[in-house]
Amino acid sequence: MPKIVDRAERRREIAGALLRIVAREGVEAVSVRSVAAEAGVSGGAVQKYFSTKEDLFRFALDMTSEFLEQRWKTLDQSGNLLDLLLRLLVEAMPLDEQRRAEVIVINAFTARAAVLPSWAEFIRTGYDELAEITAQYLSKAQSAGDVRDDLAAGDLADAVLALTDGFANRMLTSADPAALLPSLEASVRTLLAPRVQSSGCGRR
Amino acid sequence: MPKIVDRAERRREIAGALLRIVAREGVEAVSVRSVAAEAGVSGGAVQKYFSTKEDLFRFALDMTSEFLEQRWKTLDQSGNLLDLLLRLLVEAMPLDEQRRAEVIVINAFTARAAVLPSWAEFIRTGYDELAEITAQYLSKAQSAGDVRDDLAAGDLADAVLALTDGFANRMLTSADPAALLPSLEASVRTLLAPRVQSSGCGRR
Repeated sequence: MPKIVDRAERRREIAGALLRIVAREGVEAVSVRSVAAEAGVSGGAVQKYFSTKEDLFRFALDMTSEFLEQRWKTLDQSGNLLDLLLRLLVEAMPLDEQRRAEVIVINAFTARAAVLPSWAEFIRTGYDELAEITAQYLSKAQSAGDVRDDLAAGDLADAVLALTDGFANRMLTSADPAALLPSLEASVRTLLAPRVQSSGCGRR
Repeated sequence: MPKIVDRAERRREIAGALLRIVAREGVEAVSVRSVAAEAGVSGGAVQKYFSTKEDLFRFALDMTSEFLEQRWKTLDQSGNLLDLLLRLLVEAMPLDEQRRAEVIVINAFTARAAVLPSWAEFIRTGYDELAEITAQYLSKAQSAGDVRDDLAAGDLADAVLALTDGFANRMLTSADPAALLPSLEASVRTLLAPRVQSSGCGRR
């Protein structure tokens, strides 16, 4: 099926061009013309591969999740699940050009979703899925004894997502983003680490 | 000085019109023409009161901080400082039209700051000031015994700001924003509450 493969590849190239424009100049710089120029194709080609601009934006946003998932797969998955979670979170922080571009894009999408109901629905679904996956992960970590189990996994997941978003956002405009990493790590550990049992006073 | 007062008031009206447009249609809908129409003045009047569009944006962003400060002043300031902090944080959440507009505006500014160095500087200064004020507050709360003192006030401030931003952002596109409040409250309390002393096993 060379034709289908080619079509998928071409769509990725065009969406990649959109992401570069958003990361460099903001979401308002996106037009069929600017994306075509960045991708090195004609405006007609952009329209052939994406029937609407919204279609193109959604595909591009999905691509940022994929990038993150791919990086996660390269991480050492062994050992303590809280440590692994922290390694995952650092992968989502804007600490190099690629990750910076992804955070800018997600940010721009969220800002736009706030004033466009159809985008809000799309962003909301993404958030809900991420919260669900995070809660499942935390529940597993609770069973393994790597994360406190006196709070619901769902509440902990909401907190972890909020911390991740908040720190990523602040790093975007920070003069030294990496300087915020210790605070991120301390927050997540403080929030999630198993409670120390009040042992040492008699038996249970 | 009626003239000066009038000038200040007119600037606030124009900036208020900009904020309404951003909250309703996004930052890309802002132009001298659209702001003038929303404010019910001429384009020339907008340019008379703000020499550049950037000037107008900055003034408008400062106004959102003022709104928040005004609401904070109306809160009961007595009692436990951790409880008071939680009441302050809820005031920053997008739970009604006014607060929703403010979060949308701050979001749009942050997204834009990511691709405009002059805006980044401005947003960064705002973040740093807020982090400083929050750390001072937390330090006072630590001295009062209302907040844990085994972690640095500065790190706790970073965490509180990140949680606030992250939850506010997620509420923007959430179908039921208020449903996230218990998670916000649980996160902040878990992170900040004084550690229980391991008492009950003999005397100290």
